[in-house]
Amino acid sequence: MKKLINAAENLVREALEGMQAAHADRIRVSLEPFYAVRRDAPIAGKVGLVSGGGSGHEPMHCGYVGHGMLDAACPGQIFTSPTPDQIVEASQAVNGGAGVLHIVKNYTGDMMNFELAAEMLRAEGLAVETVVVDDDVAVEDSRYTAGRRGVGLTVLMEKLLGAAAEERATVPDLKRLGGLIRASGRSMGMALTPCTVPQHGKPSFALADDEMELGIGIHGEPGRRRAKLASADDVTTMLMEPILGDLPFRSGEDVLLFVNGMGATPLIELYVVYRKAAQIASQYGLRVTRNLIGTYITSLEMAGCSITLLRLNEQLSKLWDAPADTPALRWGYRH
Amino acid sequence: MKKLINAAENLVREALEGMQAAHADRIRVSLEPFYAVRRDAPIAGKVGLVSGGGSGHEPMHCGYVGHGMLDAACPGQIFTSPTPDQIVEASQAVNGGAGVLHIVKNYTGDMMNFELAAEMLRAEGLAVETVVVDDDVAVEDSRYTAGRRGVGLTVLMEKLLGAAAEERATVPDLKRLGGLIRASGRSMGMALTPCTVPQHGKPSFALADDEMELGIGIHGEPGRRRAKLASADDVTTMLMEPILGDLPFRSGEDVLLFVNGMGATPLIELYVVYRKAAQIASQYGLRVTRNLIGTYITSLEMAGCSITLLRLNEQLSKLWDAPADTPALRWGYRH
Repeated sequence: MKKLINAAENLVREALEGMQAAHADRIRVSLEPFYAVRRDAPIAGKVGLVSGGGSGHEPMHCGYVGHGMLDAACPGQIFTSPTPDQIVEASQAVNGGAGVLHIVKNYTGDMMNFELAAEMLRAEGLAVETVVVDDDVAVEDSRYTAGRRGVGLTVLMEKLLGAAAEERATVPDLKRLGGLIRASGRSMGMALTPCTVPQHGKPSFALADDEMELGIGIHGEPGRRRAKLASADDVTTMLMEPILGDLPFRSGEDVLLFVNGMGATPLIELYVVYRKAAQIASQYGLRVTRNLIGTYITSLEMAGCSITLLRLNEQLSKLWDAPADTPALRWGYRH
Repeated sequence: MKKLINAAENLVREALEGMQAAHADRIRVSLEPFYAVRRDAPIAGKVGLVSGGGSGHEPMHCGYVGHGMLDAACPGQIFTSPTPDQIVEASQAVNGGAGVLHIVKNYTGDMMNFELAAEMLRAEGLAVETVVVDDDVAVEDSRYTAGRRGVGLTVLMEKLLGAAAEERATVPDLKRLGGLIRASGRSMGMALTPCTVPQHGKPSFALADDEMELGIGIHGEPGRRRAKLASADDVTTMLMEPILGDLPFRSGEDVLLFVNGMGATPLIELYVVYRKAAQIASQYGLRVTRNLIGTYITSLEMAGCSITLLRLNEQLSKLWDAPADTPALRWGYRH
């Protein structure tokens, strides 16, 4: 295992200390328990947006804390759900009197711990609602999760709901909007190589030199099928077709096309994937009016990519274009 | 070799087609010869900033074309210098009557081809000057380059000179400012793993499971020494000490601390490196008033990192904070 770490058990804490040192102008970090909040939290009259999940998916979620995105993020240990106490404290820290919305990826541990935290918060009289992200078309039920897993759409959900919360949307507004986004986005991913959880010290699965895994989840869970290595164009087609057929997307629609690197994939390769994905979308009659290309939701040093397609309407397009000012995503200045 | 590509010989062209499809709102791409320019180029009365170099270092340089950074970038094939005709055409395309400045990393091929292009442009009556970047403290002369190689400081140079050019600094102003930046910044990198040039199909060098290379250049050239794997804190110390001692930096100075991933290194690890680097800078008496942490100048899928330290003055700090709007770096909106 080759990693730039110290003791594996200190990795999450030390990375948070690094974020604190780097971004004290934007975020405040709690080390006991782990969470990050906007420096200006709580904001009176604004719904507090809280997300979280296992570490190892950076920049998600702590990198998206700031104006126009999340109010708080709760990182668990690597690929391990945050505990209810983290979620409770973070939610309290960003409660400005307008309630709190949790954005939860559909993984069993995340769902359970966010639900427990929400119950504890409601018992204290806090208005808490939840939006679930379950955009992965690859498999219906996996070893880790009942129903579809939450993957790339999570980044878009955090950006779009973040913009709406900034405009003082209420908890019911945000829950409704989150439901629309959930119903409008689909993703699928693939891996060329596995990744290694530091505390395990060994790759999460094995792939031969001429193999790839299609339909992986962000923890390197098994996907839809294992296949022989293929060209970027063929891989892109294998991801786009299940996505397009699933919603289904319809000719004439505006969409956001998000091509994401899983960690170790060079940006030059992501642009090759984007090129083909945009061609396929266009042949399908879709208008790609917004896009995002880069390394935004990862599985440590896994090589591979995911594609997310989100149907847009005028409201979502405007929310996408709204400013954001977070460690990992800065937005809104247009020349 | 596991890569998301089609035919290796089409990689650069297809990635440029992907950039064109994705960023037509910001840049225009020429495919014959290869270059990218700002969509609004040429800008009357503004010096045209042109850089370039081998591909495989993305987002550098094409990702930095846009308002507040470069006017044009010329990508060569992977790890191969751009040809003089690319540089000549790109320079002509961004000449708004105020002359052109070339930002050139100190690699023999880049130096030669930019110099040839500059001579051809001068023969046509265009005012062209050059700023060289040679910030790598690791080795004085390598297999590829006489003198020090240009590495991480290039990204900062493009941001800072880009901001000054936006304010209508003249060619002599920019050359002087580039000289100051060159004299004020130092870098050093390391690799945990090699990378594979697609057309070669094999890793550029071999490292045992318990080895790392200290002082690599961005093409995976040999570094200062090979060493046993060490903790992130120890690696950071091995990079920071040569940097600090070289300029030398002096207690009380303001600095920009840039921790860069070489391609495959997870962001969570870069924050662990940043944590230690900031501690060392602070113990040394430096005030880290600006920073940049992420994957900005790469060697394909190499795992490893580089650290760049730049001495700041008031002018450089202001230029750093100025807006930028490029595919890979968007800046300027502050909540």
